[in-house]
Amino acid sequence: MSGIKVFAPASVGNIGIGFDIMGAALERPGDEIIASKSNTPGVRITKITGAGGKLPYEAEQNTAGVAALRFLEHIGAEKQGIELEIHKKMPLGSGMGSSAASAAAAVYAVSEVLRTGMSKRELLPFAAAGERLVSGGIQLDNVAPSLLTFDVHRLHVPKGLFMAVVRPHLELLTREMRTRLSQEVSLASHIQQNANLAGFIIGLYNADIALIGRSLNDVIIEPQRAAFIPGFYDVKAAALDAGALGCSISGTGPAIFALCPNSLVAENAGISMKKVFEKQKIEADIYLSGINQEGAVIR
Amino acid sequence: MSGIKVFAPASVGNIGIGFDIMGAALERPGDEIIASKSNTPGVRITKITGAGGKLPYEAEQNTAGVAALRFLEHIGAEKQGIELEIHKKMPLGSGMGSSAASAAAAVYAVSEVLRTGMSKRELLPFAAAGERLVSGGIQLDNVAPSLLTFDVHRLHVPKGLFMAVVRPHLELLTREMRTRLSQEVSLASHIQQNANLAGFIIGLYNADIALIGRSLNDVIIEPQRAAFIPGFYDVKAAALDAGALGCSISGTGPAIFALCPNSLVAENAGISMKKVFEKQKIEADIYLSGINQEGAVIR
Repeated sequence: MSGIKVFAPASVGNIGIGFDIMGAALERPGDEIIASKSNTPGVRITKITGAGGKLPYEAEQNTAGVAALRFLEHIGAEKQGIELEIHKKMPLGSGMGSSAASAAAAVYAVSEVLRTGMSKRELLPFAAAGERLVSGGIQLDNVAPSLLTFDVHRLHVPKGLFMAVVRPHLELLTREMRTRLSQEVSLASHIQQNANLAGFIIGLYNADIALIGRSLNDVIIEPQRAAFIPGFYDVKAAALDAGALGCSISGTGPAIFALCPNSLVAENAGISMKKVFEKQKIEADIYLSGINQEGAVIR
Repeated sequence: MSGIKVFAPASVGNIGIGFDIMGAALERPGDEIIASKSNTPGVRITKITGAGGKLPYEAEQNTAGVAALRFLEHIGAEKQGIELEIHKKMPLGSGMGSSAASAAAAVYAVSEVLRTGMSKRELLPFAAAGERLVSGGIQLDNVAPSLLTFDVHRLHVPKGLFMAVVRPHLELLTREMRTRLSQEVSLASHIQQNANLAGFIIGLYNADIALIGRSLNDVIIEPQRAAFIPGFYDVKAAALDAGALGCSISGTGPAIFALCPNSLVAENAGISMKKVFEKQKIEADIYLSGINQEGAVIR
């Protein structure tokens, strides 16, 4: 049977000051998922490439599978047979939104193959359900209803902004990183972070590049996670020296992003950041990308 | 000698979700300050009206006086003689920014009478120094330098938004209210508040009235201060029932604001809120105003 192939991009989670509430999709890299109908009821993952054998084929244990399952339940199509091929094109557990991309691509592909006519926004809760499998903490049976109240906004992004993301070859798992966070924030830090978040959003709307840079300063999460990434502050200094507007940990790390005013600065920042890891004998990959305003697309 | 008269408006501090970082000036009421040069060095307060004898004439103890003194020191004019008349046109200790208005008006009037040519933005740190006298916590000699790093932005405000502010006749002093706040915030509340703040700002920029309403929900400060205002949650319910987008405590209270989509709703919300206080035998005043985008002005 004919399948639908969907590409879903990597993303920089949190963007430092927007812990758990803000992310930026990249133009590349991204995952590809192919969904096809099948005569065997349920979701079966038939192929996984690019994951180095690290992703499970059991649908309930796989973010793409869970996302597809929750979606089928929602539309009352539990008896529909679906086959998924997952082609990972980005590193796992890097903080670059690998699981979210697979989940988003899976739901979108399933929705399209079944011709539901649903918008990507409507599909979001099911993608999030898949992603939660990795980030943990909430029981899945509670996730779908609560996620339906999600409020999601596309922020205005000034033209030219470019991301350099450098991924050191260190493995940090999301769930573990998250459990290490203090569950309390000082009121003073809360106020400072709020001010920075507000400044960042205002900077985006006003295309005030200097303000974006001043505001991209995470006083709560970054200090707690920096120690898990060897040489983090040197990497950050290298990015800022190269002209980056700001630099922090992407998602739960270990990838580090540098938001840059243009692609040239991003290229230089990426190289400078990578060098800091190399000095410590840590391999690292550089990803350069504009900001993706479109998200998942059919290919 | 001829004086300069400046009007500075009342304001709604915090606006619920923007604790310590966001405020909205009203068109009325506001304070008037008249500054004149004098041949006697130093700042002298020669007249205070409308304060019911509650404001000190000693310049170092008066927010307008402190603001003027710090400003004169900054411009190296400590030996300049300045006389100030303070005409309070709003209640003290109400959470409506009375001290901030006097401080702002004083600095602006002094700057104009001395023809410094400085912008209102440049004057802000000195106004803030005066305001700190009331809010407490920081030694004054530390205030001026740290305030020079202030980042201040004028947010886009959709047309038509109107405030109803209801002030019950209860006295709550800023410093006392502030000391009662927990100095710790849970990470979950921090995230929720961040999301609401971000939604509120995005709502303002996109003129998305519904989003502004959904986002105006303070999960950190309001729950801690509500108990100090008898019947607060009934007042809030009355405002929302009347069509207000959101309702919370203005500044440190006891004044309560309701942000409304238009002046008619504001009028109804104001009356409904006042009635809740009256049922409890508490007198209350209603202030209705559009959002003031201009701030202090010479009159």
